[in-house]
Amino acid sequence: MNIDRLVILGVGLIGGSLALALKRAAVVTHVVGWSRREQTLLKALELGVIDQAETEISKAVQGADLVVAAVPVGAMEALFKRIAPHLEEQTIITDAGSTKGSVVEAARRAFGKLPSCFVPGHPIAGVEQSGVEAAFADLYRGRRVILTPTPESDYTAVARVRAMWEQCGAKVMEMDVAHHDEVLAATSHLPHLLAYSLVDTLARMDESEEIFQFAAGGFRDFTRIASSDPQMWHDICLANRDALLVMLERFSGDLTQLTEAVRNGDGEYLKQAFLRAKQARDRFCG
Amino acid sequence: MNIDRLVILGVGLIGGSLALALKRAAVVTHVVGWSRREQTLLKALELGVIDQAETEISKAVQGADLVVAAVPVGAMEALFKRIAPHLEEQTIITDAGSTKGSVVEAARRAFGKLPSCFVPGHPIAGVEQSGVEAAFADLYRGRRVILTPTPESDYTAVARVRAMWEQCGAKVMEMDVAHHDEVLAATSHLPHLLAYSLVDTLARMDESEEIFQFAAGGFRDFTRIASSDPQMWHDICLANRDALLVMLERFSGDLTQLTEAVRNGDGEYLKQAFLRAKQARDRFCG
Repeated sequence: MNIDRLVILGVGLIGGSLALALKRAAVVTHVVGWSRREQTLLKALELGVIDQAETEISKAVQGADLVVAAVPVGAMEALFKRIAPHLEEQTIITDAGSTKGSVVEAARRAFGKLPSCFVPGHPIAGVEQSGVEAAFADLYRGRRVILTPTPESDYTAVARVRAMWEQCGAKVMEMDVAHHDEVLAATSHLPHLLAYSLVDTLARMDESEEIFQFAAGGFRDFTRIASSDPQMWHDICLANRDALLVMLERFSGDLTQLTEAVRNGDGEYLKQAFLRAKQARDRFCG
Repeated sequence: MNIDRLVILGVGLIGGSLALALKRAAVVTHVVGWSRREQTLLKALELGVIDQAETEISKAVQGADLVVAAVPVGAMEALFKRIAPHLEEQTIITDAGSTKGSVVEAARRAFGKLPSCFVPGHPIAGVEQSGVEAAFADLYRGRRVILTPTPESDYTAVARVRAMWEQCGAKVMEMDVAHHDEVLAATSHLPHLLAYSLVDTLARMDESEEIFQFAAGGFRDFTRIASSDPQMWHDICLANRDALLVMLERFSGDLTQLTEAVRNGDGEYLKQAFLRAKQARDRFCG
C-alpha cells in the first residue's frame, strides 16, 4: 500500500506518532498537518512529523487520499462539519477517538448521513504525555487497533485503513460500535475515572501534603493514568456516558459488597475476591 | 552499629531483603531464620539469606540481639505468644507489618503489656512478588520506613531499630500509631482494595476473556497491585479495618458525585476534578 497524501487533523501524540510510523515504513509520500494552533504545526514541521502545515482546513484536505481525525472526541463533530464541504470523492476518512458511538453520531450529524468513505477507528495506545513533542514511531507497535466499520462503510476503505495501521505494527481487529464502547468503558474509561477520583479524594484531604509523601511504588503505578490530559478524559467520559455508567454502577455495587465484608470482618469474602482478582490479572496481564 | 545475632521470623521478601541488606552493609554477624515451612528455610540457606535455620522458635530467639517479626499481620499475635516465654532481657523486637495499631494490640495481648524492647515498624516497600526467592538487598534503598514507638518503647531500642533500617539505605521517620494507620489506609490499603475490586468486577463479567484482551498499558499499571498476595491483603484489610472504612466511605462519596456528574453531563465538574487530580499527582509523584 501507499498513501500519496495523508492528512492529519490534530497533530498531537496520536496523529503525530501515526505520521512518524508511516514515514518510517515508507508507505506515505506526503504528510499534511492541520491544527488549531500554529505553534503545534511549527513544532511538527521542525520534528519532521509532517511535510506541510495548513491552518486552513479546506486546503489541508484538498486532494487527500486519507484523512485521519486525531482530535479529542468532543471536538470531532465540529471538525467533521468543517471538512464536510471540502471532501473529495476518493478521500477516505478515519479517526482515532477513544469512543466510537459518539464519533459515529458526530459524523452522521456533520455529513448528513454516514459516508461510505468513513471508517471509525481506535488505536489502543497512549501514554500520559500528550502533544506532538511526545510522538514516536513505535507507539503502535504490537498494540491493538479496533476498527468499527458502519453498515455504510465501503469495503475497500476499511481495507485501506486496516493496511495503514498494520504498517505501523499494530494488530487490527473489527468490532461493532456498541461493543467497542462497552469493552473500553470496562478496561480504560472506568479505570481512568477511578484513578482520577482516588487522587482527587486524597488531594482534598487536610493532610494531603503529608499523605502523598508516603505513596510508594504501588500508588504511583495505580495512579499513573490520573496524570492523563483532563480535557481529553472529560470528553471521553461524556462521550461514552451510557456504557461508563453501566460499568460505574457495576463497580460501585461490587465495592459496596467488599466494604461490607471489611465492616463485618468477613475475611473469607475478602480472600476469595482478592484471589479471583489476582488469578485473573496474572493470567491476562502476565 | 553491629548486630551480633539477628533473628528473622518469617523469611519472605521483607525479612529476607532486610537480612541481605544488613549482610551487604556488613553490620550483622549472624542471621538466624525461622519459618513455619522448612522448605522456606532450606531455600533461604541456599540463597545465603540466613546463616542458620531454626524450626523451633524458642531456639531461634535464644541469645538474640534483635528479632524482626516479618510475618503477615494476621499472624503476629500467635507469633508474639510463641516467643514471649523465651525472650531475653537484652533482646530488641521490631516488626515489619503494614498496619501498626493491630500489631501493637497483638503485642499487648501476647506479652501482657507492651515491652520496652518493642519498637513497631513498617518499611514502605514491596513488590507484587513474595517469598524469599524474591528478596534482594536493594529493596529498602531510598524507601521510607515508619517507626511507631509506643510510650513504653525504650529510647535506645528505638535508636537501634532506626540505625538498622538506615544501614539498608532507608529513610526512617517516626509517627504515632493511629496516624500511621490513617496515612497508609489512604495511600496503600484503599488503592489495593480498589485494584482488587476492579479486576474482580471485570473477571466476573461474561465477556471477561475478551475484555482483558483490550487492556492496554494504563490498565496494567492501574491493576498491578491486584497481583499482590491475597492472604497478606486480607490480613491488612481486617487489621486496619477502622481507618480503611473511613477512607472507603470518603472515596465512595466522591465517586458517587463523579458518577452523578457523568450522568448529568456536568462536564465542568469532571474537568475540575480531573485537573485537581492531575496537578496533585504531577506535583507529588513527579
